[in-house]
Amino acid sequence: MTRWPLPEYMALALAQAREAAQAGEVPIGAVVVKEGRVLAQGRNGPRERHDPTSHAEIEAIRAAARILGNERLEGCELWVTLEPCAMCAGAIAHARIARLYYGASDPKGGAVENGARVFEHPQCLHRPEVYAGIGEAESADLLRGFFRERR
Amino acid sequence: MTRWPLPEYMALALAQAREAAQAGEVPIGAVVVKEGRVLAQGRNGPRERHDPTSHAEIEAIRAAARILGNERLEGCELWVTLEPCAMCAGAIAHARIARLYYGASDPKGGAVENGARVFEHPQCLHRPEVYAGIGEAESADLLRGFFRERR
Repeated sequence: MTRWPLPEYMALALAQAREAAQAGEVPIGAVVVKEGRVLAQGRNGPRERHDPTSHAEIEAIRAAARILGNERLEGCELWVTLEPCAMCAGAIAHARIARLYYGASDPKGGAVENGARVFEHPQCLHRPEVYAGIGEAESADLLRGFFRERR
Repeated sequence: MTRWPLPEYMALALAQAREAAQAGEVPIGAVVVKEGRVLAQGRNGPRERHDPTSHAEIEAIRAAARILGNERLEGCELWVTLEPCAMCAGAIAHARIARLYYGASDPKGGAVENGARVFEHPQCLHRPEVYAGIGEAESADLLRGFFRERR
């Protein structure tokens, strides 16, 4: 059940998550948007890329920063299918992402509303606005399906 | 004042930090070591690389994972001149770093003994052994000098 129509950007992030699953990676996807334009997309890929930092958010943020030629993504939104982990929440803060939209919450690995709650400490030098639960059913279904197949 | 002789790996990390300063970046450096061999080095470089994730730890971890052809740096040590932030602590956990050695603590941005304390939550799926305060005087001097020049 989705409580409101799925925004276009979350649909794109979910499409990225499906690509990750097809590559045998945990299905998580992300999109960076600036002023209504999709700047960059990313999907989870640590195994095939031999890169432990290759989470969807990091891939999308790095790509967007390359495109803008700036380490700071001022005025940008990040849409991601799952609650970011501590690494990705930290990257979101460093990148100065203005608004974070995420799908499912992640009690096992999340660090926004769970665990380390990275944005809630004074050591976090930038806090995005946070909107959770957008596309959470679709996101959780993808993850459940992925792990069910692998058992 | 250093309370014990500076280990070789921290000296290498400090040399990386000095390289960062010469490039106009905040002087922080890191080294990944496996079984006594230096696998990879990294230094802070977000501005020149247009990459908000380009912290010393991330650069060293990504380089080491490429060399090993594995997202998991099993049995590896990370030596870094400053207490890792939330992003880097998260990356250290994802990379399965066995032992973390760091120089100065960072009350303003650290997330190991300060702030988010990333390794202390059940959402953190791997905890390295942590050794702090190695080369802290040298590390803090580098940072102070860098920011003094810029004021």
